Amino acid sequence: MLKGSWIYEKHTDNYGVSWKINNIIYQEKSEYQEIIVADSEQWGRMLLLDGIVQTTEKDEFMYHEMITQVAMHAHPDIKKVLVIGGGDGGTITQIVKHPGVEKIDLVEIDGKVIDTCRTYFPCFRAGFSDPRINIIIQDGIEYLQRTNQKYDLIIVDSSDPTGPAIGLFTESFYTSVFQALEDDGMMVTQSESPLFYDEIFNSIYHNISSVFGNAYIYMGTVPTYISGPWAFTIGTKKYDPRKCISSREIPKNLKYYSPAVHQAAFVLPQYIKTQLLETR
Amino acid sequence: MLKGSWIYEKHTDNYGVSWKINNIIYQEKSEYQEIIVADSEQWGRMLLLDGIVQTTEKDEFMYHEMITQVAMHAHPDIKKVLVIGGGDGGTITQIVKHPGVEKIDLVEIDGKVIDTCRTYFPCFRAGFSDPRINIIIQDGIEYLQRTNQKYDLIIVDSSDPTGPAIGLFTESFYTSVFQALEDDGMMVTQSESPLFYDEIFNSIYHNISSVFGNAYIYMGTVPTYISGPWAFTIGTKKYDPRKCISSREIPKNLKYYSPAVHQAAFVLPQYIKTQLLETR
Repeated sequence: MLKGSWIYEKHTDNYGVSWKINNIIYQEKSEYQEIIVADSEQWGRMLLLDGIVQTTEKDEFMYHEMITQVAMHAHPDIKKVLVIGGGDGGTITQIVKHPGVEKIDLVEIDGKVIDTCRTYFPCFRAGFSDPRINIIIQDGIEYLQRTNQKYDLIIVDSSDPTGPAIGLFTESFYTSVFQALEDDGMMVTQSESPLFYDEIFNSIYHNISSVFGNAYIYMGTVPTYISGPWAFTIGTKKYDPRKCISSREIPKNLKYYSPAVHQAAFVLPQYIKTQLLETR
Repeated sequence: MLKGSWIYEKHTDNYGVSWKINNIIYQEKSEYQEIIVADSEQWGRMLLLDGIVQTTEKDEFMYHEMITQVAMHAHPDIKKVLVIGGGDGGTITQIVKHPGVEKIDLVEIDGKVIDTCRTYFPCFRAGFSDPRINIIIQDGIEYLQRTNQKYDLIIVDSSDPTGPAIGLFTESFYTSVFQALEDDGMMVTQSESPLFYDEIFNSIYHNISSVFGNAYIYMGTVPTYISGPWAFTIGTKKYDPRKCISSREIPKNLKYYSPAVHQAAFVLPQYIKTQLLETR
């Protein structure tokens, strides 16, 4: 919500944050959501969907490196990648840093998000302009139900489970993801805040566990998301994602990820382990 | 700042947060600051000093375990501990979990903070009621200048560097801390947010490095503090704090800390390392 020169974001019924902005650069209502690009005082350009900060120029690398580089370094041979959501272009910008990847399908429901970010976020141009990228404007659930493609890695880079992303957090969706993976394939999804969105965080873990027979949570911090840790969850058919296969080349221009960060990110505070056990 | 049933906290000129509260339990202006105890919707009772959340019943363990248990498990024989600040009682409540500790001096400038927390935070009673605790109501800087005591561990558990805590972040203060430590002693201080309070975070690191010849940063997340990681910095005369001496008994009732968390907490994202190098 815009209030004078502040964006006010109500994260939960009990918690809100406000970010100072200099001006609104772009604003449009698409078929699915309200898209805003604002110039913020601290974080540079910000993308908001339905009033929720999705990414910013200055901290986007914390989220995008962590959703992408962990799986990229845990699987020894990723050639075909599917990104569901991720219309801002941040995740594909991380994937294209790997020369071994041959094909990247980006399935985004809202073409207006892609158009907006292509225009207003120069930091994601390397992703959009890479010849390996194939953009498909479609509902991710529908795409997975119809495709015959098999992928080495599927990244679910969705917004929060309200609005168009709501179906991307269910067991039946993860089953479609499982079916579209190669026999040694891996999936990763952003999995919200274990503290503020504990119900959805727990359910992602239990749903992926149930479909894959395993689920691995790792964490990072993203200051423009909700306070505390931000979680990611991996389901895997073969490789243990906690092991960084360090023989793979690490892209040189990373600002968050390193092999040591990879391994440390899987170490969960005790209260999160307890929470997952108690909700089993 | 109170606004109806919300507490509004302006973290920086560009960022604020709001917490829903049910009611104000206690409110007083002491000689040093305004003390409020509020009952919050999500986090239980909250202590605010000059409008800034210091601790809450439900997430206090994240901060207090991390400021205390890392050093407690990195030094093989801690008998005498000094806590500077920490008037809420959370840090001493962590220290008293260790039977090997013989003496704990708590030096807090504002006796009203202690009285308030003793009354309104039952979760910290184990600390205040322990016979090893010796409470000294005095400015920490002044105390260190005059004392002849030597400690195995000094914990600087201060509020933000505004108001009465401002002197607890200087090189001359860390020099007094160094002098009050045994020859194998260790200090730890909360060291703010590397992102939102980067100047003070960087300066703590460089000041402690300069006094001790080393400084080790580790991080955790505390949801009721500012978003992103929350840092702690150690200066040490002998032991490497990154090594958890696992032969020491880990208290059974911890909710955040574990030996694995200890080691992972010292792994910093690349951007923080770069920031420290660039400000050297």
